[in-house]
Amino acid sequence: MKTIGVLITDMFEDLEYSKPAEAFKKAGHKLVHVGLKNNSVVKGKKEKTKVSIDRSFDEISVDDFDAIFIPGGYSPDKLRVDDTAVQFVKDFVDSGKPVFSICHAPQLLITAQVLKGRKITGWKSIIQDIKNAGAEFIDKEVVVDKNLISSRSPDDIPAFIKTSLDILKKS
Amino acid sequence: MKTIGVLITDMFEDLEYSKPAEAFKKAGHKLVHVGLKNNSVVKGKKEKTKVSIDRSFDEISVDDFDAIFIPGGYSPDKLRVDDTAVQFVKDFVDSGKPVFSICHAPQLLITAQVLKGRKITGWKSIIQDIKNAGAEFIDKEVVVDKNLISSRSPDDIPAFIKTSLDILKKS
Repeated sequence: MKTIGVLITDMFEDLEYSKPAEAFKKAGHKLVHVGLKNNSVVKGKKEKTKVSIDRSFDEISVDDFDAIFIPGGYSPDKLRVDDTAVQFVKDFVDSGKPVFSICHAPQLLITAQVLKGRKITGWKSIIQDIKNAGAEFIDKEVVVDKNLISSRSPDDIPAFIKTSLDILKKS
Repeated sequence: MKTIGVLITDMFEDLEYSKPAEAFKKAGHKLVHVGLKNNSVVKGKKEKTKVSIDRSFDEISVDDFDAIFIPGGYSPDKLRVDDTAVQFVKDFVDSGKPVFSICHAPQLLITAQVLKGRKITGWKSIIQDIKNAGAEFIDKEVVVDKNLISSRSPDDIPAFIKTSLDILKKS
């Protein structure tokens, strides 16, 4: 059983959170939802999925988690305005522990300045941002580069889940 | 009287469209709303403001407009997925005619790869993307660098409108 920090706020892409979250829990892993304000409830883009935030970024440290998961949608754009969130992401990526990133999630990694020389995929709209950050954009359903595991969109969710679960088993 | 192309789609920041649009029309300028599909209606983030799309990107050319205006919110993220939109923006910036950009609008300019060596401002979340694109980020309510006129957020709207109207008068 691993403890996974889910970095999330309002306007996340509903399925990009709910499907992997369900699979992680089914496999016996524990999810801790980290957001901008503890004891708040955040909603997905389609306003169907609600998530209770367990911890805020100033209450956590890298040691609290075995991996982090960043769902897409517009949640990463909102998280990367918060300097504490950005510093946590930088420290976590630097720790070498697994980072599961889908869709717009690389936006948070770009602001944390951790993508230079890395291979990653993400949503089409941010391809130029990924390249400008010094990363190599790979157009595949799932890309693994050391501790960075990334997918492009909701269509890639099955491959994203399978690869993420494999990595959690080995890590 | 100038003709201004408004590049817009769903999830735009309501006030960043409605306030400048109102001021441009009041000053006698004509607005042509350009979107991903003509004869469609797009809605703002708060779903209060509705905009009818007059033309799609494959129906327009740089010569059709004296200036373009790109409202913020998540509209630029959606527009920059469209290759025709991105090519139009590149050609328009290269023409030297005024480009009014607010909030997330620089995302479209980044994908069009027109920011290298330019001075620009924008919403906090995209500061690193702006720098990575080779531009200089300036933290001011309105920044003018040749034909690029930019502001950060809804708070900057009065300065954005004033400067934009001055430039339309002179151009």
